Parts: sequence; structure tokens; C-alpha cells
Amino acid sequence: MSDQAILLFSCPDQRGIVADVAGFIAGIGGNILDSSQHNDIETGTFFMRVEWDLSGLTIAHDQIEPRFQKIAERYNMDAQVHFRPRRPRVAVFVSKQLHCLYDLVLRMRQGEIEADICAVISNHAAAQEVTDAFGLPFYHVEVSDQNRADAEARQQAILEETGAEVVVLARYMQILSDGFVDRWHRKAINIHHSFLPAFVGAKPYHQAFTRGVKIIGATSHYVTAELDQGPIIEQDITRISHRDQVADLVRKGRNLERLVLQQAVKLHVEHRVLIFGNKTIVF
Amino acid sequence: MSDQAILLFSCPDQRGIVADVAGFIAGIGGNILDSSQHNDIETGTFFMRVEWDLSGLTIAHDQIEPRFQKIAERYNMDAQVHFRPRRPRVAVFVSKQLHCLYDLVLRMRQGEIEADICAVISNHAAAQEVTDAFGLPFYHVEVSDQNRADAEARQQAILEETGAEVVVLARYMQILSDGFVDRWHRKAINIHHSFLPAFVGAKPYHQAFTRGVKIIGATSHYVTAELDQGPIIEQDITRISHRDQVADLVRKGRNLERLVLQQAVKLHVEHRVLIFGNKTIVF
Amino acid sequence: MSDQAILLFSCPDQRGIVADVAGFIAGIGGNILDSSQHNDIETGTFFMRVEWDLSGLTIAHDQIEPRFQKIAERYNMDAQVHFRPRRPRVAVFVSKQLHCLYDLVLRMRQGEIEADICAVISNHAAAQEVTDAFGLPFYHVEVSDQNRADAEARQQAILEETGAEVVVLARYMQILSDGFVDRWHRKAINIHHSFLPAFVGAKPYHQAFTRGVKIIGATSHYVTAELDQGPIIEQDITRISHRDQVADLVRKGRNLERLVLQQAVKLHVEHRVLIFGNKTIVF
Amino acid sequence: MSDQAILLFSCPDQRGIVADVAGFIAGIGGNILDSSQHNDIETGTFFMRVEWDLSGLTIAHDQIEPRFQKIAERYNMDAQVHFRPRRPRVAVFVSKQLHCLYDLVLRMRQGEIEADICAVISNHAAAQEVTDAFGLPFYHVEVSDQNRADAEARQQAILEETGAEVVVLARYMQILSDGFVDRWHRKAINIHHSFLPAFVGAKPYHQAFTRGVKIIGATSHYVTAELDQGPIIEQDITRISHRDQVADLVRKGRNLERLVLQQAVKLHVEHRVLIFGNKTIVF
Repeated sequence: MSDQAILLFSCPDQRGIVADVAGFIAGIGGNILDSSQHNDIETGTFFMRVEWDLSGLTIAHDQIEPRFQKIAERYNMDAQVHFRPRRPRVAVFVSKQLHCLYDLVLRMRQGEIEADICAVISNHAAAQEVTDAFGLPFYHVEVSDQNRADAEARQQAILEETGAEVVVLARYMQILSDGFVDRWHRKAINIHHSFLPAFVGAKPYHQAFTRGVKIIGATSHYVTAELDQGPIIEQDITRISHRDQVADLVRKGRNLERLVLQQAVKLHVEHRVLIFGNKTIVF
Repeated sequence: MSDQAILLFSCPDQRGIVADVAGFIAGIGGNILDSSQHNDIETGTFFMRVEWDLSGLTIAHDQIEPRFQKIAERYNMDAQVHFRPRRPRVAVFVSKQLHCLYDLVLRMRQGEIEADICAVISNHAAAQEVTDAFGLPFYHVEVSDQNRADAEARQQAILEETGAEVVVLARYMQILSDGFVDRWHRKAINIHHSFLPAFVGAKPYHQAFTRGVKIIGATSHYVTAELDQGPIIEQDITRISHRDQVADLVRKGRNLERLVLQQAVKLHVEHRVLIFGNKTIVF
Repeated sequence: MSDQAILLFSCPDQRGIVADVAGFIAGIGGNILDSSQHNDIETGTFFMRVEWDLSGLTIAHDQIEPRFQKIAERYNMDAQVHFRPRRPRVAVFVSKQLHCLYDLVLRMRQGEIEADICAVISNHAAAQEVTDAFGLPFYHVEVSDQNRADAEARQQAILEETGAEVVVLARYMQILSDGFVDRWHRKAINIHHSFLPAFVGAKPYHQAFTRGVKIIGATSHYVTAELDQGPIIEQDITRISHRDQVADLVRKGRNLERLVLQQAVKLHVEHRVLIFGNKTIVF
Repeated sequence: MSDQAILLFSCPDQRGIVADVAGFIAGIGGNILDSSQHNDIETGTFFMRVEWDLSGLTIAHDQIEPRFQKIAERYNMDAQVHFRPRRPRVAVFVSKQLHCLYDLVLRMRQGEIEADICAVISNHAAAQEVTDAFGLPFYHVEVSDQNRADAEARQQAILEETGAEVVVLARYMQILSDGFVDRWHRKAINIHHSFLPAFVGAKPYHQAFTRGVKIIGATSHYVTAELDQGPIIEQDITRISHRDQVADLVRKGRNLERLVLQQAVKLHVEHRVLIFGNKTIVF
């Protein structure tokens, strides 16, 4: 893969934005490979993601952002520039269920997700079988009602030491404090094993079984202070029938959880997700 | 299609039920074409649907139920016997949105659903375009807060006069009284334009838009006194994105509503649905 | 809906295209509402669709194309400009199966597809029930091995008289001549009742049944001289099982055919499809 | 899980089969947990699968088959009896692509598939990373045009030594001889990375890309002498667009291959598949 830049921004909508952005990229020798935009009609907000080739660039990479600053200010943009190839460092939190962790590990190893796992953090010892098999750093941080604050301080220290840029809660069954959530605002991704907003909270497969639904789902979202209420990145579903007991829902749901979480992580590390209010724009 | 009988029952599970039922059918010259059963493990309840050919029957049709009575009593069954071919009479309630009504009419005309529409009842005049085009009886019953009881009495009278056996609420936007719901218990089917239990009540597409879900759904269920809480017969979903405004959700949702409602009606008139508590067993 | 223009083009890829196109639109007072582009890497071809608001336009509508000519020439573009709202005139060819015709009629009436049916042409009388019910012009053109050329001349005359811009073969079971196909190149859409390229030709549901597939499909494509080989616009599938006989596949396939054909027609009349070689780019 | 038996059979259809089978099971103290049947109308063949609880059995396990023999002969049945819990021994053949192997290993470890891997056989060394990580027996058998017969003899010897009951070709890119295929008739399962019968043979993703399809698929089938023509067990699909290059199809196809192959293996080891001609009945 040749060197590429990704420009992501949002700003109040007005005439000429696309022309100016495209003119800027052409002016410094970039060639647009892919671009997507979106207008939020209610609020008059414009969103754009541009992926461009850097092979003909006539300025240094680190000059791109300063040069773009003029346009960003003119349109009052909230803008980010990212470069590829580059593999973000991902910390995975996990409890006893390991299927999502295994799935992420294998996809990163096989090049399906361009990221690396810098830490696996768990309140149980079970995940060590995964980290041992694949040579990944494992951190066992026990969590109880008594030591919750200390445990979180330890977790935060691990994230800092290992240079984590993204936190993935891969069926991590502990509640995180508001302070922790704030610190990882827009950088922490959770998988909830239901089709949100149905079946918020504990034991969603039991809830689904009791309600007698004919379809179950899984939802990946950014973590916010309010449980299961953050901006949704990805959802998927599978069909069930009266034959399926709770144990069958759990088994069928695993496929969903794996697919939905990995897709959300992939979209995030490829800088395809913009958060707007409590919703996402996924380019 | 040759003459067929459908036997549907539920009873406490015990050894020998299938043997006795199959023995009974073979004994009177029937030949089993299709059979499905289900055990509810928690409550120890057994459910079965058997479809059998009547061409070699050695007794009269109307002797089947009396003869079966002995087995039904032995196992304490809640049993029904139906015959095919036979087209149940369906009354469709509709407001301004006509897509579900059109869909049901066309499917019945084209033989996809083995039933006939005996009445289209609406609180608006709009549906008359459908009934005129297809020569169906139309009943305009205006409903307001003032005349609700009278209107319902009129609706009930129409249902009786036209010999309705099933009531289908095909995007009918009025609440029905508990008395009416009771009278049509297990015989009234509604389509709700969300993936229940998400987005109960009014304007589910607006609710879905606000929450930022990535998938929308539709749910068909039996009508019960509690709004949108009845036993679910069928659900389906479609994928949406940030590009979709409320109007797009409404448009995409129509396909779902049509498909889900017609499927539920089809399953019901083919005697494939057993209600158990607040859930359905769909054979 | 306010007035809008849609610009669709393809050209050899090079730096600056997006900047120049966006600059042009901003320069004449347009505001981009939606834009999509695509690079075909193998051939170095660039494709773009831009939808823009005309409410602030500083030139006359009919001046847009002449003014754009300069850019089109600079980049050697194959470009088209369309305006909305505008309802293209669609001629529907049909044989005995009427479900796709019904579906198109209803969607156009209910505003889901922004187009009008100018003629229903059939080699059977059956479709008259649809056209009578909805007040559409019906043309019965009998086709046999003896009169094929004459029949096609008659069909072509009807298309010209009624001002047809698009031809939709909605389960039309006659082969059209190469001459006819050429005349309607890129303007004639067919529905084939299989998941192409599987089960080309006659009786695809029988072929699917014989092969024992677990999923059936439908495919909508532009008509070309070679049977079932044209550029694919849309496909969809549904799951089947060993229980399904050919008649069940036919019934289940109808839902697919309806959905897939209407989606292709909708995409086409919204100018979202670009043909490139034997493939489509669907924006 | 309590002890269970599974009875699978096919025979010419006639009155009384279900009654006699159900009577037999009740007579020896079994209790039917689940049963499915199917009539093939064209050939008049009846198929049945019954799963029953053995906890109240009044005879020894090994007396079930001899006792059932009388009924089997009366109806001219092709019958099998299996017991659960029991984990069949599975040999997995693999080349360089490891995602299907990983998936099977993890599902067996996590209890989603009730089977064990007795051997991983590969013509490449790559798979050793998987077998080392999970402590599985790895057999590297190089295959070339020169040594094909010897290699197959070695593979067959390994299968015998390790007690393999099922052979799974998990993206194994070598052709097997007719002799080998015959020996593993109805016991060898392949994953083909297309929606069969579309794109038979080599490089199906390239074929799909060239044809411009909008949906890709994967198919799991029993291996027969004719390439990609065996009885289909399971298929699934995913949607693609013009944006997807061959590499994207490969990546998206991996999810399909994993899901489809594991589902076929799961169905097979749970004795849910009956082969009939070149089709499967999946209960």
C-alpha cells in the first residue's frame, strides 16, 4: 500500500467547502482516492472524509496540517488528519467469554484489521490461554466492589504504559467509572449482546427469550457514562425460532458479537467513524 | 390440492403422545404429509401440528374430531382440527397508509395467501381507491374521541355481518378497546413499524432516527390489551445508514411492513401458529 | 422538494477533477447536497455523481451544460446533467405473471419511485386487469414465431408514440431482437428469476430445485444481446430448504423479483447507475 | 446433557411409519425430544430424524438397533442410530489459508461444535502455527504432480491411524483422487468460496469481480468425484458493491467461508444431514 492521508472533518454547511478542500489537496500534489460527505439537514452540519494518495506530494507530511489550517479556520472545521499505513495500538478488556478476543486477535494477525493489541486486561485468569497462544501481553487486574477505584487506576496505568490508543470492551462484564469513560471519550468501544435499544442492561438473551422475539441482535457502540446508550457504530441480527432456548441464543449470539465488534473496531481504526451528538456517521 | 386435515394441539408432555396420534391417523386411513412438534422444557408442555391427506379416509370428515376426543382426553390436550382447502374470511382495518392493504389484496388474488377479504374497514375515505379497483366491500367508519364506543359497535357489527374470522390491523392508527381486543383474542393481528420491543408506541421511525440505529425493523403480533406487547408472530429488518432521514426510514420500512404482515397472516390462516403464554410457536 | 441537478460523469483519472467540478458548482451558486465517486484502478477511470441544490443558481438552468462543457473537454468526460423533480416515462413489458407490474404501479402511485408508466405492453390479455384497475394505457401485442418482426415494429411504434424513456421487462417471456436491444441500449431493464450467473435461461427455479441449492435469488440487469449477460444492477436472495418444492420456490421468488426489479428501476430513474464495460457503478 | 439417541432413516413412503417408529420408542421407554420428517413427493420417499431421551430406557443401548431391525425391514428402511453425547473425530485438510481451520478449532474448544480434531493435514507448513498454539497433531504432507499418489496414501494412513471419522477440506487447494473421494463418500465436506453453481472451479472471487455481481457467497458441500458438484449442505452470502476490489471480496468472503463451513460441520456431526441423490435434507 502506498502512503495515504485521511482527512476527516465536520463544519457548518456552506457553499464552496468541497471545492476548497479538493483544491487544497490538488494544490499540494495529492490525488483523491475516495471521498464521502454527508449533510445533516436539521442542524446544517457538513461532514467529509477524504482519502488521498501521497506519492506525488510536493510538501513534507508534517506540513499538511499547518497548511490546511487556513481552510479549517475559514469554515470553522473540527478536522483531523491521519496517515496510512499505520497500526493503532488497541487494549482489549475481557472477562470470561473469550470469543470476541480470539476473533480480534486472529483478524489482526491475518491483516483484516490494521491494528495491534498492546494489552489484554482481564478481571479473570481465563484470557491467559489466548495471550499465551499468541504471545500477547496479559494483565490480570482483579475487580471487586472493594477495590474498584484501585483496579481502575491500575488499568489506566497499563493503558498509558502500553501506549493504548483505543479501548475495546470485548464482553467485559464490569461497569467503568464516569471518570474512566470521560478519559476514553470517543476512544472506547463496547459490544452489547442485543439489538439496542431493545434489552438494555443485564442478561439480554434471557430478556429476548422471555419476550419471544423472532430475531436477536448485537450492537457495538462508543462507551458513554449512561449504560448501553452511546453512539451506535454497527449492528447485526440473526433469526431465531421457538426451538431456541436461552443457550441457543447465547451460541447464535456469539457469531453476531464477533462480527459486529470486529466491524466496529475496523471502522474505527480506519478513521471511518465521525460522532455527531449521540449518533455516528460511518463513511 | 387434495383434501387435507390439520391437527394442532398442546398438552403436558409424556411418553407415547406421538405414537398415539400417529396411530390414530393411520387407523382411520390418513397419511401424514408433514408434522412438527416442540417441547417447552421449562413447563413440560408438548406442541404438535400434523398435516395429513384425507384421500384414503375410512370415516366421514365430521367423525374425525369425535373419534380423536378419546386421545385428547387421555393427554389433556387443547386441540383443534382444520380442513383444507378452505379460505378464511379476513377483515382488514386501515387508516391512510394503504401499502399493506394493497399487498394483502394482491397476494390473496394471486393465490399466495389462501384467504379472502370480507371487509375493509377504515376511519378514512382513502382506502376506497383500493376497494373500488378490486371490487371489495368498503366500510367507512369515522372514529373520534366522542364516538369511539359507537364506532367500535359499528365495526363489530360489520365483522359479524360479513362473517369475519380474522381481523388484520394493516397500519390502523386507532386504539381499540379492551372489550374489542378480548372478543378477537388470538384472532387479531397487528403490524408495528419497529423491531419490538424497541420503539414501542407512536412514531417509531422518528424514535429510531433519534437513537441513531443502523437497522430498522417491523413486527407482526397478536393484539392484546397492552399496546405492542402481544405474542410476536414474525419480524424482519433492513439496514439503514446516517444518510437516511426519517422519510427514508418510512419508505424503507414500508417494504418490511408489507412482508412481515403478509407473512404473519399467511402463517395464521395456514394454522401454523400456536400461542403459548406471551410467545408463539410457529410450525 | 426544491429544484436539484444531478451531474453524472466518467473520465480518465487525474489530479484536480473533484476540485474543478466542485469549483464550477460553487461558482454558479449551486450547493452540493450529495456526491459520490469511484476510481476503477485497473483502467484508471474516474466516476462521479453530484447532486446539488439549484435554489441559489446565478445562471439559467439551460446554461449549466454549455458552461460545464469546458471542464468536460479538459478531462475528456462522458457527462450527463439531469434535473429533479421530473418523472421519467416508463414502458412495462409483461406476459402472464403480473406481480412485478403491480408492484411497480403501486410504488409509482405511492411516491416510492419517481416515474410514470406510459404504456403496459403484453403478449397476453391478462395484464388488462391491472391497467383497468389503475387507468393505465394497455397495448396487447400478440407475439408468435410468425409475426415476431411485425410485433416488435408495433412495440417500437408504441414506445415512440407514448414517449417512453425506459423499457422495463417485468417477467416478459419473449426474446427481443438484437436490433431492438441496441435501440434501447442502457435503457432496458430485465428481471431474471435467479441469482445470476447461476441458472441462466429457461426455468431457473426448476434448475435451482434440481441442483439442491439452499438459497435462491433474483437479478435485475440491463438488457444486452446475449441472454442474461447484461450489466447487473441489483440482486437479492432468500433462504430455502429441502421442504420447498418448485411451487414454493416460485412463490418465494416472487417477493425477490418484486423487490429487486423495483429497486433497479428506482436506481435507474434517480440517475444512480453508471455502466462501465459489463458492470455497473451504483451510487 | 442426558443420554440421547438419534435415529435417522429414509424409506418408501407408506401409511403407518411414524406410528410404528413412535410406538417402538415409547415401547422401550424412550421419550421423543425432537422429530422432523420429510416426504419427497416425486419419488415417494420418506425421511425422518428422531432425537429421544434414553434416561427411562428399559433395554440396553446395544439392543436398540437389533430390536428396531424388524421395523426397518418392514418398511425397507436405510436407517442409522447414533448416541449423544459423543464427539466424532475430525481430520482437517488445509493449505495456506488458515481462517477456516482457526474457526473450527475455536468452536470445538468453546463447545459450539461437539467434535474433536484428530489431525491437521497440510501441503504447507503454515498451519503449524495453529496446531502449536492449540496442541493439535500436525501432519505436513507435501503434494506435487510427481508424488500425488504417494501423498494420498500417506494422508489415508494418517486418517486411519488417528481414527478420523470425518474429513473437512478447510480451503485445501489440491484435487483429491476419485479413489480417495469414494473412500470418504458422504464423510468429506468441502468449502467452496462461491455461491454454487455460480463460479465453479478456480479463483471464484476473480470470476465474481469480472462478472460484476452485487452479492458473493460461499457453499459447503459433500465431496464427490465431480469438482464442486456434490450435495450442498449450507450456503450464505454477503452484499458487495462496485467499490470492492478482488482483495475486498477475498476479505469479505472469509467471514462467509468460516460461517458456512462450521455450520456444515456442526450439522454433519449432529447427524442432521441426510443425502438423497445429489441433494441434502437438513433437519
